[in-house]
Formats: sequence, C-alpha cells, structure tokens
Amino acid sequence: MTTEQQEEEKICIIGSGNWGCAIATVLGRNAAILPFCSEAVNMWVYDEPVTLPSDKKSTAKLSYVINTLHENVKYLPGVKLPSNVRAIPDLKEACKNATLLVFVTPHQFLPNLLPTIRANVHPTRCRGVSLIKGLDFDEMTKAPVLISKSIETAMGGGFKCGVLMGANIADEVARRQMCESTLACDFEDDGCNERTRQLFDEPPNFRVTRINDVAGAEACGALKNIVALGAGFVDGLGFGGNTKAALLRVGLLEMAQFCAIFFQRVERGTFIESCGIADLITTCYGGRNKRCAEEFAKLKLIEHKANCDELWMDIEHKLLNGQKLQGTLAVKEVYALLENRELLDSFPLFRSIFEIAFTGRPVSTITEGIHVIGKRFVSNL
Amino acid sequence: MTTEQQEEEKICIIGSGNWGCAIATVLGRNAAILPFCSEAVNMWVYDEPVTLPSDKKSTAKLSYVINTLHENVKYLPGVKLPSNVRAIPDLKEACKNATLLVFVTPHQFLPNLLPTIRANVHPTRCRGVSLIKGLDFDEMTKAPVLISKSIETAMGGGFKCGVLMGANIADEVARRQMCESTLACDFEDDGCNERTRQLFDEPPNFRVTRINDVAGAEACGALKNIVALGAGFVDGLGFGGNTKAALLRVGLLEMAQFCAIFFQRVERGTFIESCGIADLITTCYGGRNKRCAEEFAKLKLIEHKANCDELWMDIEHKLLNGQKLQGTLAVKEVYALLENRELLDSFPLFRSIFEIAFTGRPVSTITEGIHVIGKRFVSNL
Repeated sequence: MTTEQQEEEKICIIGSGNWGCAIATVLGRNAAILPFCSEAVNMWVYDEPVTLPSDKKSTAKLSYVINTLHENVKYLPGVKLPSNVRAIPDLKEACKNATLLVFVTPHQFLPNLLPTIRANVHPTRCRGVSLIKGLDFDEMTKAPVLISKSIETAMGGGFKCGVLMGANIADEVARRQMCESTLACDFEDDGCNERTRQLFDEPPNFRVTRINDVAGAEACGALKNIVALGAGFVDGLGFGGNTKAALLRVGLLEMAQFCAIFFQRVERGTFIESCGIADLITTCYGGRNKRCAEEFAKLKLIEHKANCDELWMDIEHKLLNGQKLQGTLAVKEVYALLENRELLDSFPLFRSIFEIAFTGRPVSTITEGIHVIGKRFVSNL
Repeated sequence: MTTEQQEEEKICIIGSGNWGCAIATVLGRNAAILPFCSEAVNMWVYDEPVTLPSDKKSTAKLSYVINTLHENVKYLPGVKLPSNVRAIPDLKEACKNATLLVFVTPHQFLPNLLPTIRANVHPTRCRGVSLIKGLDFDEMTKAPVLISKSIETAMGGGFKCGVLMGANIADEVARRQMCESTLACDFEDDGCNERTRQLFDEPPNFRVTRINDVAGAEACGALKNIVALGAGFVDGLGFGGNTKAALLRVGLLEMAQFCAIFFQRVERGTFIESCGIADLITTCYGGRNKRCAEEFAKLKLIEHKANCDELWMDIEHKLLNGQKLQGTLAVKEVYALLENRELLDSFPLFRSIFEIAFTGRPVSTITEGIHVIGKRFVSNL
C-alpha cells in the first residue's frame, strides 16, 4: 500500500433521509474531485419498501431505488444523487474502513448502530461529524449531553466527533441555493480539520466555515427549535415583525445563557456563525417547528382544546405526516432541567414557551416571556 | 417657582409623520402619568392641508386636524393620539422651554429648524433624542457624521443628543403590539439618563433598554437599510431562507466592521440589542427598503431596464407614493466612502449591493457578496 492510499479518506454517511440525501449530493460531488478522497461515498440506508414514482402500485426497496434511479424518491424526491453515492443497507459493509462518519439519522437509532460501526471503521484514522439536531439529557442528573459526546463515548478509543450545523434547510441545499454552514470540530491536527472542511465545502453554493466550539454549535442546533415554537406562537397570534424580532433576540440571549451555564468553554463568536444567528432566523421564519406552533396558536384561539399533548399529536399528524417535532421534545427536557436546577426565573422565554405548549397557559401571554433577565450570563455574547 | 416645577420635564417632538405620531402616543401616555413631567407634549407640525376622512372634498390644516380629531389622518390614520399631545405649527412656541427634544423629522429639515430650536429651549436642562435613521457624510472627507452629532454641533453649548433605535415599525408600535427599543444616550448624570428612559418606556408593550453607545446604535439604524436592499434582491430572485439568513449574518458583520473602522468606541454588545440584530431582522423581512429592492430584482429579471436610477424612481413612485428610500441613498454614500478609503474589498456585501443597485451588475450575483473577508475587524462583534 502506498502512502497515498493509506491516507485516502473514505466517507460513510449514516442515514439517508431528507438532510442525509441533501448532504450526500455535496459529499458525493466533492469525493469525486478531491484527490485525497476515495470516490465512492457509502450511505447506510435503513431499508424500507417505497412506492415507485413511475408505477404507484409497485414498491421496491429504498436502497435498490437509490442505486438504480439515483434518487431518494421518498425523502428527497426530484433531486438526483451523484452516481458515486452508494446506498448500502448492510451497516457493516457501509462503514468498512471508513475514515469519516457522517451521522444524520434520527438520534434514537444510534445506540443500536454504534457497536457495529465501531467494530468496522478504520482502526486509527476514523472520526465523525454529526448533523443530528437535538440534545440528550442524563436521566439521573437531567444535565444536557451532546449527541456528539454520546457518539464519542460509545465509539471509545479516543474517537472524536464534530458537528455540521447552520442555516441549511435540506431542500434548498439539494437545489444548490447558496448557503453557509458551520463545521465545528477539534480533531487531532489542523490538517485533519481542514481536510474535513474541504470534504463538506462546495463553493460558491455551500460554504463551510470551521470553528473549534463543538458544544456551542451543537447546542444552538437543538435550542433554536425551542425559540422557533415561540416564533410560531407570535405568528399564529397575528403579531408583526417588531414582536417577532424581539422574540428572536431574546431567544438568542437565552440560548447563549443556557450554553454558558451548562457547557464548558462555549465561545461568544459561535452565536454569530451560521450555526447561531443565521440558523435561528431561518428556523423561525420557515421551519417545521415554527409552522406547527403557528397552527397550535391558531387552533388554541379557536377551540380552546384542553389537552395540549393531543393537540400537538394532531398537528404532527396533519402537517408532518406523523413525524415528531424536535422543539416540543427539547423544550420539555430543557424545562425539566431548569426546574430541577431552580433556574426557571432566569429563562422567562423558554419557560413561557413550555407553559404555553404544555400547561394550558394562554398563547397570548408569550409576550410576557420576551424580556432579558439581568446580564448575569449574557456577557457570554 | 418650587424646586419641583424647576425640575419638571417638558417634551417637544420635532416632527409629526408616521413614526413621530406613533412615538407621540407613547410619550403622551407617559407624560400624563409620570410625576416629573409636564402633562402637555408639544408636537411641532410642518403644517400642510390634508383631506378629511369625513368629507373627501374638504381639506384642513394638519395641525388643526390633529388637535380636533386627535388623529394624524394623513400619516397615521386610524390611531388616536392622546389628547395631551398638542400639534403646534409654530416652532418657537412648540419648543419653548423644552427639556427633551425628540427629533423625528426628515433630516434634511434640520439645518433650517435648529437655530430657532436652540434659541427657545430651556437654557440649561435641555437634551435631545434623535429617532432619525440615516447618516450624514462630510462633503470633503466623505467621512460619516452621525445625525445626533450634527444636532449637537448645531445646538452648541454642550448640548447632548442620544438616539432611540430598534425593531420599531411605526404602525405596530401605534397598535400597541409588544416591541423592544434601544435608547442610546450618555447625558450628564445617570438620573437624567434614567428619566429619559422612563419617558419612552411603556411596559409591557414598549420596552426600552438604555445603553451608552450612541454611535453604534445610530449607525445600525442607517446601515441596516443597506442590508435590507440585499434581502430584497434575494427575495426577488426567489431564493429561500438559507440564502437570506446568510445575507443577514454577513450584513451584520459588515455593519460591525464599518462601525469599528469609522466610529470611536462602538461596543460589541450594541449589535445584540434591539437596535442591532432585531431591527435588522424586522427591516429585512418587512420594511420598505426590502420591498422596493424585491420589486427592483423582479423588474430587472423581466425588463433588463438599463437605467437604474430611473427604475428606483419608478419603484419609489409606485410603492412609496414618491417618498425616498433611505437604503439607496445610504449605499451610495457608503460606497463612495469605501472607494475613497480603498476599503471596498473588505466589504463584499455592501459593494455587491451598490453595484447591483446602480451599475447594472446582474441581481443574481448578490450571492457572490455573501462572504466574510477575514476576521480583521470582526472581533468587534
């Protein structure tokens, strides 16, 4: 084996949903031209039967469809994947000797997948980048645990995992509209950091900036979904741009304050990267959390339906085809944590969003949560 | 005269347009209840004949209409002004013994008004707060001059002028929707600063935070209109949320960089106040600069009309009833300044917005301007 071959990167994407396939278009095109990377990009697919667009009565396995039509007809219809992206339903085969794992699967799948992944990746040169937006919470302490950290722990042996976050609505990335993205990683050497960045970076349309602050970037990706619920409430009430902008601003401050309290060494600059303010704006003006919360507010105003959990389920069923909202899960966990630590008074917005979403508090009281409590932690920004 | 009477505040609002009348509703209600303030709020009105809503064929003088109907039927129709707000067309009478001047007139009016104002306000206790959004530029050096500074210079005698900026679309303020506002001032003592804040603050709907950084707050109020032109271009091209969020983010960084270069002691924290990020968001999602630029982009795509100045005039005529856009004026001045100082390469977004707006550069090239040049000045944020 020559040195060149030894140092060749092998990418494996763990997941093949909407965002997984969108990032696969970028990684596939980059892998085909970057000299230090193997051309083939493996994509582990949770195989399921899908209906074929050509014949609505037939189904075929998703991996077969992706490998023959080069399109994920179920989760990213209408977008061609590069032919060097190979759908592989066998996890062992997919991640064999991988040097870069790209995690973009629902995060509850991870515990079942990681032991197999660990046993099959490149023994010394493998690292990960997580695109999963969410937070784990320790059952005992209720403390937040980064998904990237959970991955590192499960992989063991000094495995390092960064994150890619930012204002990256998947369909727009797939249609090659210009956007920015933040890669947060702190691998063993700067060469590895930069190579990882280059694997994702596809100027002029997909522009990746690298920072070191994994915790800040990842926490922003989860917490913005909570703020987006508030944005949806404001929109559902018919309030204007002033109120919504104030909500985003206070939301950003509570996100920063949360990071300052619960994570080490989060950096101020992270909040003005794409993963911070830009992702927050995109999510609050167009994401699914904002849309569902807007619907929630409207239905509450008309129906005064008592059971909030039922109402959210109805909305998820109607607007998301049954998929789960991330913001409602996150705000429940964050509220439990803040209550446990007696910090609710320092987070009037997060608190208001939870109480409106789950305790029957009137939606119109959202504005009471839009204020900054002191500047105790805000110097973080 | 008792001490109490001596210390009584007397408010005079210079201007009675859309924003002037909206802020008059807040100041009027506050003046009526705050013990340290004279109840009457004077509002200097540039008198003009207006059509009466009750009889479309009759006209009356604006000051007469305001004082009888308590409504500015031309610039803020449908909103009642508090009866203690008195429209006064005679400037001398309006500002007689005023202790707080609130400037909210088109800024080209100021040179004609300030000598009369200076001669009539309270001789020792008067200060100003400017709500005017714009920048002056020195004809010789092309350097930016804050309007609050021009006012201070013209008033002389140590007169101090702060600003009130923020995500404050006038109609929403007038309808008493919740919003935040930033008062930037640095008057002789903290008592005066706090009294001024209280005169504007009307919780829970109009929440005023005070900061010291007048230059930062005022510059944000002018520069955001430039970014809003870019936002309109992106919307007109039909791009999605990712691109727009990236544009806002890079726009905020260029605003901060501009302030770091051209003004002394601008503070980082200013950009996360309402006058910074929140006003930028509101303006880029709903303001007149964004709407007109969106129209410009659409017309350019259809017509390829060669003369940009004509096209802007047509749009102003159609969408703004002939009023002038602030963003197009500002970007011309800012471009001339940056060119003069050989700094254009450090401001790719401002540069792109100017070139698209005025030199025939294709609107679709706006995305080329959405990137950050180094971190030379960005440590300011």
